[in-house]
Amino acid sequence: MKNKQWLLASRPKGEPTSDNWRYQEVESQQTGDGQIKVKVEFISLDPAMRGWMNDSKSYIEPVQIDEVMRAGAVGEVIESKSDDFARGDKVYGNFGVQSVAVSDTKGVHKVDPALAPLERYLGVLGMPGMTAYFGLLKTGLPEAGETVVVSGAAGAVGSVVGQIAKIKGCRVVGIAGGKEKCDYLINELGFDGAVDYKNEKLRDGLKKQCPKGVDVYFDNVGGEILDTVLTCINLHARIVICGAISQYNNTTAVKGPANYLSLLVNRARMEGIVVFDNAKNYGQAAQEMAGWIQQGKLKAKEHVVTGIDTFPDTLMMLFKGENFGKLVLKVEHDE
Amino acid sequence: MKNKQWLLASRPKGEPTSDNWRYQEVESQQTGDGQIKVKVEFISLDPAMRGWMNDSKSYIEPVQIDEVMRAGAVGEVIESKSDDFARGDKVYGNFGVQSVAVSDTKGVHKVDPALAPLERYLGVLGMPGMTAYFGLLKTGLPEAGETVVVSGAAGAVGSVVGQIAKIKGCRVVGIAGGKEKCDYLINELGFDGAVDYKNEKLRDGLKKQCPKGVDVYFDNVGGEILDTVLTCINLHARIVICGAISQYNNTTAVKGPANYLSLLVNRARMEGIVVFDNAKNYGQAAQEMAGWIQQGKLKAKEHVVTGIDTFPDTLMMLFKGENFGKLVLKVEHDE
Repeated sequence: MKNKQWLLASRPKGEPTSDNWRYQEVESQQTGDGQIKVKVEFISLDPAMRGWMNDSKSYIEPVQIDEVMRAGAVGEVIESKSDDFARGDKVYGNFGVQSVAVSDTKGVHKVDPALAPLERYLGVLGMPGMTAYFGLLKTGLPEAGETVVVSGAAGAVGSVVGQIAKIKGCRVVGIAGGKEKCDYLINELGFDGAVDYKNEKLRDGLKKQCPKGVDVYFDNVGGEILDTVLTCINLHARIVICGAISQYNNTTAVKGPANYLSLLVNRARMEGIVVFDNAKNYGQAAQEMAGWIQQGKLKAKEHVVTGIDTFPDTLMMLFKGENFGKLVLKVEHDE
Repeated sequence: MKNKQWLLASRPKGEPTSDNWRYQEVESQQTGDGQIKVKVEFISLDPAMRGWMNDSKSYIEPVQIDEVMRAGAVGEVIESKSDDFARGDKVYGNFGVQSVAVSDTKGVHKVDPALAPLERYLGVLGMPGMTAYFGLLKTGLPEAGETVVVSGAAGAVGSVVGQIAKIKGCRVVGIAGGKEKCDYLINELGFDGAVDYKNEKLRDGLKKQCPKGVDVYFDNVGGEILDTVLTCINLHARIVICGAISQYNNTTAVKGPANYLSLLVNRARMEGIVVFDNAKNYGQAAQEMAGWIQQGKLKAKEHVVTGIDTFPDTLMMLFKGENFGKLVLKVEHDE
């Protein structure tokens, strides 16, 4: 069985280019004892992938040169030598950017295709949803009546952050690029306000949308946006540092938040999060989020691009702000 | 009675110069009902004063042009029309940079000259001591066995932070400028290590002195030092933002911490503090600190400069790192 793979060929300086990737088609591995073989159907594309391409200490090991690119994915078990999985099971796992994966089942779990379309397990029902849930509730600590601002608000994490903050009774303002995304936040997801950073002055927009200041800021983008929100925070504000997509392709140093002394003036806090720290509580969170979905309080949107061959270009959509909803690569299989 | 005063004449751009100050000698005010008149003996000079000179929103109102410069001070009550204070009482209050102050007694409290020399009530027994106590214990949350790093370590706040961290069973490393200060930290104050940022590579020094990484960083200086410590923090580290003296005289933008994404990688926290928030607990803290002083666990050093006429130049010692211990201006009175 043919396996289409994308390998890391070299480490990027700045924006990843086609030179950093190598495509190959190989015969898929044998399935060993305790292993499963998975026909991958959807691959998750995430900003964090850019960090994994760097050879630097982080919360997770870098992807090695000539290794299949790391990625979460969902697919169907087509061969099982594991007692825990059967042929036909739909599963989530760290299967990488390839069309067929053989896995020792570590970190693999079943997903229910009757409950939601498979790609949703890469978004609101997957890591982005978990990131939003734990980052907002455990670190942002929003209280009813407070104002919560989230950047990358139309993205996989941001859209869930905003909706959970609404469920918790907060005023929610999203920062996103373009009228279409901002309209979506307000009309579809129920945000109270949106600021279109591409078409209005961010500080003016924030001042207008957050008349009582910002109590919680969930930051996915860093750079100028983080710096501007820092000028609008309230006493004892909590800033959740989830990512900094504006800085990941820098060839010069990361732009640090020049207004960080606002933390002092406002006795405020800035704290980093990594979703994996909450692994033992995923189950409970998933259950609560599933309830919200059933009640119509939590909506999801995936941006599906078809064709594993498009991987290098599709990944770049994240850094250009071109995705609208959770970006997912659909793998086509020759029958 | 003659009152020697320093007034804010204009707002500085960058470093304060003599043009920003105006000296005058005036007849001291009458003491009204409920007021006291204080012969000021020692005036506290603090990095925060630089911020009060700016016309910008902060945790406290700016000093106005032609207003006596704000400063904490200690002195003797020489006239009292208040029921709470008697002639001869030694008192602390916000008396400003002047030799005689008339006060409505708001924020004024008695100090005991038998317990400690008067100038000490501006240092370890005053705001700097309180800042260290609450900033470290409430926000830094050090645990025995952890490594605590403090910058401005030979200064009024830093020296107390380090000693309290020692009392709590931590490994303590101070960052200071010059061999004399570093020797003092180790030999006199019992720090475990010191890094002389003027004479060694900061990162190398930190790596050597903090073999198990940094769990708590108490920052008084900002700039390059904050940025470098960020590369050495451990998982779940706490960074206390108390000040940023390296940035207060900037004419360009404050240098934000470019390595702030280390907060994400390490799920770490950066939080600002302002001592006044703890006012209702000062008494309890002072009692505990007095106990440590009696037990010889907490030592103090003041850097006393004599002559209110020297105020503009003496203040600048803070920004040049020339003070060694709590910087205090001694006021001479003609008899």
